[in-house]
Amino acid sequence: MKKVLSLAIAAALVAPVAAMADATIYGKVRQSLDVVSDERSSASEVDNIQINNRTSRLGVKGSEDLGNGLTAVYKIEYGVNISTNPGGNEFSGDGSLGARNAFVGLAGGFGTVVLGRHDTPLKISTGSLDYFGDTAVDNNLNYTESLVDRRADGTLAYISPSLGGVTLAAALVPGENNEADGLADAYSLAAMYSNAGIFASLAYEGADGNIDAIGVDGADLDQFRAGFGYDGGMFKVGVIFENVTVENPAGGDLQDSDSVMVNGAIKAGPGMVAVKIFDYADDASDANDHDGFGVGYHYGLSKRTQVMANYVGSSFDNRDGDVSIFSLQVNHNF
Amino acid sequence: MKKVLSLAIAAALVAPVAAMADATIYGKVRQSLDVVSDERSSASEVDNIQINNRTSRLGVKGSEDLGNGLTAVYKIEYGVNISTNPGGNEFSGDGSLGARNAFVGLAGGFGTVVLGRHDTPLKISTGSLDYFGDTAVDNNLNYTESLVDRRADGTLAYISPSLGGVTLAAALVPGENNEADGLADAYSLAAMYSNAGIFASLAYEGADGNIDAIGVDGADLDQFRAGFGYDGGMFKVGVIFENVTVENPAGGDLQDSDSVMVNGAIKAGPGMVAVKIFDYADDASDANDHDGFGVGYHYGLSKRTQVMANYVGSSFDNRDGDVSIFSLQVNHNF
Amino acid sequence: MKKVLSLAIAAALVAPVAAMADATIYGKVRQSLDVVSDERSSASEVDNIQINNRTSRLGVKGSEDLGNGLTAVYKIEYGVNISTNPGGNEFSGDGSLGARNAFVGLAGGFGTVVLGRHDTPLKISTGSLDYFGDTAVDNNLNYTESLVDRRADGTLAYISPSLGGVTLAAALVPGENNEADGLADAYSLAAMYSNAGIFASLAYEGADGNIDAIGVDGADLDQFRAGFGYDGGMFKVGVIFENVTVENPAGGDLQDSDSVMVNGAIKAGPGMVAVKIFDYADDASDANDHDGFGVGYHYGLSKRTQVMANYVGSSFDNRDGDVSIFSLQVNHNF
Repeated sequence: MKKVLSLAIAAALVAPVAAMADATIYGKVRQSLDVVSDERSSASEVDNIQINNRTSRLGVKGSEDLGNGLTAVYKIEYGVNISTNPGGNEFSGDGSLGARNAFVGLAGGFGTVVLGRHDTPLKISTGSLDYFGDTAVDNNLNYTESLVDRRADGTLAYISPSLGGVTLAAALVPGENNEADGLADAYSLAAMYSNAGIFASLAYEGADGNIDAIGVDGADLDQFRAGFGYDGGMFKVGVIFENVTVENPAGGDLQDSDSVMVNGAIKAGPGMVAVKIFDYADDASDANDHDGFGVGYHYGLSKRTQVMANYVGSSFDNRDGDVSIFSLQVNHNF
Repeated sequence: MKKVLSLAIAAALVAPVAAMADATIYGKVRQSLDVVSDERSSASEVDNIQINNRTSRLGVKGSEDLGNGLTAVYKIEYGVNISTNPGGNEFSGDGSLGARNAFVGLAGGFGTVVLGRHDTPLKISTGSLDYFGDTAVDNNLNYTESLVDRRADGTLAYISPSLGGVTLAAALVPGENNEADGLADAYSLAAMYSNAGIFASLAYEGADGNIDAIGVDGADLDQFRAGFGYDGGMFKVGVIFENVTVENPAGGDLQDSDSVMVNGAIKAGPGMVAVKIFDYADDASDANDHDGFGVGYHYGLSKRTQVMANYVGSSFDNRDGDVSIFSLQVNHNF
Repeated sequence: MKKVLSLAIAAALVAPVAAMADATIYGKVRQSLDVVSDERSSASEVDNIQINNRTSRLGVKGSEDLGNGLTAVYKIEYGVNISTNPGGNEFSGDGSLGARNAFVGLAGGFGTVVLGRHDTPLKISTGSLDYFGDTAVDNNLNYTESLVDRRADGTLAYISPSLGGVTLAAALVPGENNEADGLADAYSLAAMYSNAGIFASLAYEGADGNIDAIGVDGADLDQFRAGFGYDGGMFKVGVIFENVTVENPAGGDLQDSDSVMVNGAIKAGPGMVAVKIFDYADDASDANDHDGFGVGYHYGLSKRTQVMANYVGSSFDNRDGDVSIFSLQVNHNF
């Protein structure tokens, strides 16, 4: 048989068995059924039941031992858009994918270097501190802590080995504008400490006006984030603080916001009860200032399958009204 | 090595072996070479040879035994657009995906409940009765029975266990409009009976004007479908009847159509000869009324690989002319 | 458990184990960090650092032994768009996929026939002769040899068995315009000889005005390509020549270009040093005439993982200036 097959066609027939040893398909499917009340704008009040996607995803990842302590790593991950009702039509399915991390890199005693699309270190630095991640109470929603998490589409990123519990991460993002653009028009830095149940992080993300990080031409970005966590076994606590400054190229600031979140969780059988309080205030424009709280019961049917009930209420002093969501969610990881 | 890798990067290296036990990649590649004559509009008569996609698809699915008779199920499936020539350019490949079923759910003695994107029960109710599915003679093409099959992008769906051969299915679809929208702005119900080679189904799908199921604002939908099948081993017969009413918000009906299809198949060696007759008539607007027949020989090179020759002819009384297609098709399932 | 699950839902639970034996996930992740100087237009000179995607891809492929010397083959491959910065925003990830080969076919003593999306034989005929494929010095870039490689979205393609080292390939592409379009509005033919380290190929690709192969309505295409290669173990040489004529429907030619490339590579430890020279000249319009050279060191960390340093310089006599790129690249195949 082999003789009759040539070139490109042959490639379809010959599966490089050894080469495939470590390609892993993985993903998360997360759907929620939500009772939503959003009265921020009296002209378009929302008072309905929704089925929502909670960051479902699908990916392929793997690594190769290159010898001499060196490892090649790769990942290609996409967001899976389910229950997103494109064009407002509940029967028009969304076949599009969302961009998520996709990179190739090398790991060794020096740490790990990757090239491609990746979460910034600032985003990574507090990833484990929100016990409501990928739910209706996730801390990057515009009615919760409003954290600004970024993923750079093309970045050179580095993460150090853990040295006495300390890990350092840095990512450089070229602006790729025509003239004289360098490798670090935007950059993100994080230091993380993890030891004996204690986690602490400090991170900074900056962008000059030559790179479009904020959606405003020529606006400089300064973003600071600090995180703290304690895991005591039966309970855990997570705290995130963020300050974002976006300078107005015409003078003054477009944004000068402080965000804070404190959440905690207590084990309860195979599940946990989690609570969260959050506050967002912007000194440059107070239209979106809000604070509120969340509470949830997260029940593990297994390590991979979870059902959850979450509630979030958020008060907007300078809008027509508030936001509240009661959400039943099913998660499966594979 | 493990020590040097942290957080997001580490996720790329650690393949959760046990967790992957049941993630299954599957798909169908279905391509046909068609001689097409479509004279419905004399201004744009079609008389050519085409290579067409016949609902190729690619997916990941799996399940997890949760103990106590409970199972988690998931699926992420996409349509694969091959030979679709975007923009009419045969050399501009189509990298887009089509939305297909994608959900997470729980199965147990009570049946199966899923949340996400799924075919409606009405669509499922006659899925096995068309022996020309995913071919040029498929019963949901606009020149065949013109069945209206829907997939809800965000639905809460239930399917019962088989009780004495009877299975019940229901799907609720929230409209997600701003104000006072509930969980069941559209819904779909089906009862199916399967026993000793006999299959019978009744289904209803309805939508109120608050949900965009038809592409017409404010139009109510009532859709009834009945199916019957008999599988006698060497031969089988399938019958589908459908009535669709779309109320005109301005009064009267936009559509009041009856569709009927009868098809049968006789085993012939490793393949089968299949024939089909169909009729579509709309009392509200007779412009698309048509009837016709199909015939095909479907030859299994294996359980997974098939070659087919199909013909369909359809007569349109109130159009400039008719449709006829001769189609050679190759199918491979994996 | 099985009893409680029906129809579409059941499909998610039952993984056809045997059927999955040969479905292979594979891919390439290729990213480069480039110092780019492009002075072709003084109004929009490029002088920056970029992170670029070098044809990353992800696919599923497999085959099935049908007995009697017959094999079913399939492939579904997509381009993975990383570091492409949609809309010029480095933080707006690109979730779209690029179309690559996707087909179903049958292979046997007669050769292989496929239906679907596939590289044309002309493209395949010189695929192995460019030692800078999928890099910043790839021979189909507009500043290198400017080879015109096409992939037909819907084609009937054939490749013969190797007969005394000779392989023949043909692809027919229907235009699918409404009236009287046949199966071969465009077609591509290639003859390839491979024996004892020597490779030689001749190919022709033609399109009549009824099919959109060039982006100009009604323009006929004639494309000739010849390739030659010699692999002496420690070194290898590849040569590609191409002539493209695009007739102007209004008279004369829109394009009458000659492209030539010569490259060579010498093994150097686990890597190789490769050099390339190229020239492109268009008798119909000399605005894009250019010539130049490339040089690279390609180091294999393993059979699947590579790091590369490449340089390319290209001179444009009739433009404002030239192009030069220095590129560091990481490749991983899985």
